[in-house]
Parts: sequence; C-alpha cells; structure tokens
Amino acid sequence: MQKNEKFSFEIICRTPCGARRGRIVTPHGTVETPAFIFCGTKGAVKGASAEQLRACGTQIALANTYHLHLQPGEDTVAALGGLHAMMGWSGPLLTDSGGFQIFSLGHGGVAQEIKSRRAIGAPRTLMAIDEDGALFRSYVDGSLRKLTPENSIAIQRSLGADIVLPLDECTPYHVDKKYTAASMARSHRWELRSLAEFKKFNCGAQAIYGIIQGGVYGDLRKESCEFVGEEDFFGQAIGGSLGGSGKEMEDVVALVCAFKHRTKPTHLLGIGSVDYIFHGVRNGIDSFDCVHPTRLGRHGGALMANSISDGKGHINLRNSRFARDRSPIDDSCDCHTCKTTSRGYLHHLLKAKETLAGQLLTIHNITFMNRLMERIRHAIESNTLPTVESYYIG
Amino acid sequence: MQKNEKFSFEIICRTPCGARRGRIVTPHGTVETPAFIFCGTKGAVKGASAEQLRACGTQIALANTYHLHLQPGEDTVAALGGLHAMMGWSGPLLTDSGGFQIFSLGHGGVAQEIKSRRAIGAPRTLMAIDEDGALFRSYVDGSLRKLTPENSIAIQRSLGADIVLPLDECTPYHVDKKYTAASMARSHRWELRSLAEFKKFNCGAQAIYGIIQGGVYGDLRKESCEFVGEEDFFGQAIGGSLGGSGKEMEDVVALVCAFKHRTKPTHLLGIGSVDYIFHGVRNGIDSFDCVHPTRLGRHGGALMANSISDGKGHINLRNSRFARDRSPIDDSCDCHTCKTTSRGYLHHLLKAKETLAGQLLTIHNITFMNRLMERIRHAIESNTLPTVESYYIG
Repeated sequence: MQKNEKFSFEIICRTPCGARRGRIVTPHGTVETPAFIFCGTKGAVKGASAEQLRACGTQIALANTYHLHLQPGEDTVAALGGLHAMMGWSGPLLTDSGGFQIFSLGHGGVAQEIKSRRAIGAPRTLMAIDEDGALFRSYVDGSLRKLTPENSIAIQRSLGADIVLPLDECTPYHVDKKYTAASMARSHRWELRSLAEFKKFNCGAQAIYGIIQGGVYGDLRKESCEFVGEEDFFGQAIGGSLGGSGKEMEDVVALVCAFKHRTKPTHLLGIGSVDYIFHGVRNGIDSFDCVHPTRLGRHGGALMANSISDGKGHINLRNSRFARDRSPIDDSCDCHTCKTTSRGYLHHLLKAKETLAGQLLTIHNITFMNRLMERIRHAIESNTLPTVESYYIG
Repeated sequence: MQKNEKFSFEIICRTPCGARRGRIVTPHGTVETPAFIFCGTKGAVKGASAEQLRACGTQIALANTYHLHLQPGEDTVAALGGLHAMMGWSGPLLTDSGGFQIFSLGHGGVAQEIKSRRAIGAPRTLMAIDEDGALFRSYVDGSLRKLTPENSIAIQRSLGADIVLPLDECTPYHVDKKYTAASMARSHRWELRSLAEFKKFNCGAQAIYGIIQGGVYGDLRKESCEFVGEEDFFGQAIGGSLGGSGKEMEDVVALVCAFKHRTKPTHLLGIGSVDYIFHGVRNGIDSFDCVHPTRLGRHGGALMANSISDGKGHINLRNSRFARDRSPIDDSCDCHTCKTTSRGYLHHLLKAKETLAGQLLTIHNITFMNRLMERIRHAIESNTLPTVESYYIG
C-alpha cells in the first residue's frame, strides 16, 4: 500500500448484511462513510456556492478533469491556487481522470452510452484510441487533444484534488465480451502507467484509486478486482458498464463487491438514485456520486422519501397542484429551503423561469442526500438499516 | 395626510446642499434613507434568496404588480400568505402599479422607451388606453386584460406590500407637450381614483405614494408636484420621462425637487446608477430603485467605485485579463463573494456559463449598493458628502 500519512481508511463497524461504516481521512478533512460525493463538474456544483454546500452538510465534492482541462485549463486552476482555493472549498475533493467524458461524449452522448442507452445526434469527439491514449476534439475550441494515463495524472496533480483516478476506457454496454476483455486489459496497463506517474511526484497530498473494469462479465470483473486489489492503490472505484437494467446493475455491483479488496475504500462511479445507494451500501460500497440530485433540482424536482412521495422518490414542483401549497417540500427536512420556502413559491419561481428556483431546490436535494447518508451511517452503527431503507424505499 | 400609525417619515438631518437623512417606518420595519430598493420583479430578486438579501444588508425590495398579476396572479400570492410570506422576506416591500410595464412593453420595449430610446421589434401589447384604464394583452397567455386605477390598487392590496403606487400613464419621451399635459391631467384623475379606492379598504397595513408626472416640462412638473403634495399621499414618486440625456434628467430631477412637497418621502423611479444617485441625494431624494445592480451582475459586471475601476463604475469579469487574477473583486468589500471568491474563479464561472457566477456577482452588487447608501447616510450626518462622492464618482 502507498505510504501516506495524510490518508487513511478505517472501517469502524460492519453489519451482518455486509454494509460498513467507515472513515476516510484526507489532507482536507475526514469523510464519514458511506458518503455521497457531489458533482462540481466545471469546478462548481451547479447552483450552489461552497458556503451553501457546507451549510447543507456536504463532506466531499468532485470535479471533472475533462471539463477543467479544456476550460480554464489546469495551469489556470493552479495559478488560482488549485481547485480547493479556486472553488473556495476547503473540504475533501476528488477528480476523475477525464476518461469518462472523452469516451461517453466521444461515443456520441454523455452518460447515456455507458448506462446502456445509445445516444443519437451528438457529435463524435473521440477521434482515435490506441495504446498510448485517446485523441479527442475540444468542445471549447475544436482543437485536437490527447489524454494519456501520464498526462491525466499530471493534470490532476495541477488541479490538486485529494483523491485522483487513473485513465481507463469506459467501455460501452453495446460491445461484446472479447472487446470488453481487451479493453479491460488495456485499462489495467493504463492504470499501472498512471500509478507509476502518480508515484513519481506524489508528496502525500493526493491518493489514487484504481478502477475496476470488466463490464457485465463475472470472470472479467473478478480479474479486475484482483488486479486493483493487488496493486498499490489507496482505494478502488467500480467503473465501466454496469449493464442495461437496474437488475443487471445490482447483479454486477454485488458480483464486484464479492471479489473486491476487503479493506480499501470503494467508490461506485456515477450512481446516485436512492434505491441503488441502499443496494450498494448493503454490498459494502463506501461512496457514491451522481449529478442526479443537483440536475433534478434545476428541473423542478425535490427529492423525498418514497414513503411520503407516492413511491416516486421526488415531487415535481412544476405540477400545478402545488401552485397554492403553503407547506414546505418536506416538513421534516431542516434545510434552508424547507425552513423558508413554500411549494407554491417554488412552483411560481419555476413557472417564472427564475434561477432562484434551481438554487433553492438544489439546496434541498443536497441536504436530502447528505441527510440520507447520515441516516444510513447511524443505521449501520445501530444495525437498523432495513428500517431506514423502508422509510426511503418502502 | 393619511392617519396611519404604522407608517411615519422623519427627516433626521439635512445638509446645506439639500441632502437629507431620513427614516421611513413601515409595518415590516424601518428604512433608513437615502435607501436603495432592489427589484424583485416577479417576487424574487433575480439570483438572490431572501436570506441572501438580508445578509447583503438590504432594507427594502420591490415587486412588479404587472408581472405578479399575470403570473401567478394576486389571488395565488394571497393564498400563499401575501408577498412577504411568499418571498420569505419579512422586511419592507413596495409594489408599483403595473402601469410602467404596460406602457413601456406596450410601446414596444420595456424601459427603453420611457428612457428616451425607441425600441424596435418587440410586440405591442398595449391595446387601448382611455379614461377608464389601459387594455393590454397578457404575455403569459395572450388574454386581454384591463388595468384601472381601482383594480391596480385592489391587486396591490392582495399582494400586501407596505408601500403601493397609483396607476399613471408613463408618457414616453417622444411625445409633445400637449400630449404630456393631457396625459398628466389624466394621471392625476387616476391618482385621485386610486386614492379613493385605497382609502376604502385601508386598515393601516399599506401606505400610498403619489406620482409626479409632467415629462421634461417645468411648468407641468410644478403643477404635478403641487397636486401630489396637496393630496393625501404618504409619499411621492418621480415618474414619467426624465428626458433624453443624463444632463436633461438631472435638470428634470432638480426642477421637481425644487417644487416637491418638503416633508413627504420622495422616491425616484427606475434610477440606479451611482452618479445619478449622488445627484438625486443632493436634491433631497430619499429612495431609488433600478434593476441595474442585479442585471449587471448576471452579465458579469461587478460594481466598483470609479476611483478603483478606471472611472467605469464596474469591472467586467468576462474580460480575459481576470483569468488568473487571485484577488477578490474589491478587497475593501466585506461581501460574501469578496471574502471567498477570486476574480479568476468568477471569470471561469462566467465562461463556463455556470449560474453560480450570477449569484456571486449579484451578492456583491447588492452589497455594494447597500454599502454605498450606508456611506451616503453617514456622510449626510457628518456633512462629508463631497468626500464620499469623490471616492465613488471622482
């Protein structure tokens, strides 16, 4: 394992079902796990300032290397003092490798392809992929760029997040096992190159996770788990295609969790719906990330437990039934929005296209996710996970 | 004068040059004057929550009767507890009569026409104007609506702001004296009807200002000042066309201020640039409103004193010279944005089209205006207005 005094991961307790309550220590603070990581794609969680993130109980956020590399560029981020200083966020941060966006945008759509749906109409920006890396066009200025395992790590070093990820190929769902196996093998070679580059300059300010690939194929996932488990990665992230349905995804996650390294912190990439979070937690996942809570908020959706939202997991405040509703989104929620704002006002702001609606709903949804994870952590400690799950999912 | 124990206006001191330091007491709190009133057009100051408004030192905001009447409708606002409760703003509020938007949109553009520039291309929504009121089309659903002095007051009663305004015709700049005189006379008749309607139901929760019309014509302005001064209005607002240039506007304001009632609080409608505020203050204006600070912020402009912004009164953070600038907008500013955010980060957020840029710049600009007015108030008390003015304007 990496010798790194500034980072540690401790498993505080486990439930009989397989969930675990842990603690990741980073140079910018501690992350109590299971935790949700909020997406600050371009160096900002959309619609929320760093102060608002903190006020919502946020522990950790991530930013996308791909977007920041293209704009404003990692040199500019470094000139502004690095990602933490630039964002005014003093807590832990994670950056991805840039690979996900290159491959998902490159295949003609963002997350859709990885998540099994073929996207139509988006321009292809991935120009070529070979052993060295991936060639793509910048969506900012059309220039040709190359991302390699080495420069992805170098870019992430300039950005300065606490946790970084190695470049991998995000294989789409619609490829066969042979392609997935070859892609996985190359991703493993890329991960070794990433690790070598990472170690060359690391002074203890950053830690690197390995990424588990293998698509929907059990034997490949097992092989990838063993690879990442044995190499000198601080943590591990589950990447690649998780299948074409919720059921298939849960199967893949359960499979990976059966084979994954037992004591490394484990992140499930890109998953953020409440039911999948409970499933992941029961399988020993320690952290999650997804744009869902903030994106949903900008579009008028307020997250709520199933038990108080007719089983939908959220209410859509654009619905005219809320026009004269003086109650808050959720009167058991202690977020700023629920303490100050009625559903009727949010409905009006959405209809009037006031950006304040997105701000207020984002605050609620971030608080909801942080509260959810907090309850999950307490439930693991007290072995009452089924009770909390039935409140949220039941 | 209206007998209204919940409202009072007191002039605390005056400077030899004509500026005055006052205090307006309303049922929702006190406004220290001179004050700036922020525009919450559709029941929200664009990009700022009520809590943020308070944190920026805001005393009072306004909302537009025209927009709220069309969406969500005054009955819905009332069902949500009135404007204060709906917005979560417990401080003083003002609503206009709806006339400004009807006439300015109706003449084919919003403020441009009143401010002397003819707008091109916008659809005409003002269908007819007669002694009874103004017929217009809703921009929300195309329906025909009529605004009369009586229903404007009734709508504003439902909205529930502290200070309300009577319906007047906002005469454009490009009309002759004969039209302006006839329009003013009709506005006066409308103001009397407004006052009668206001008194019919007023229980002391609201106060009404009269509006001084007369365009750029001295004798008409004098006549209108006398009308508003003699009638039972709590305060007075300077409306109508103020001319086609800054110089002409200053002349009209000075003229009106020479004839206006001496002890009624006086509002200058729609004016918010710093130099005009100093001019108005010197002429005894007590309050100002304008969308400028918040609109400028959404477009990347940060208000600054002339003395530290090359005489421009703001800096445009879209300018690439700020890309790597780690300093705050203004290191003498104590707003949340200046305490946490660099110019370089704001530049990046603007380039990346993150709405957070607008939020952060709006916070700075609101704080700037509140701080400006606070300094003006102190300067009046200590008779040092020229010193403060030269810092901001010099």
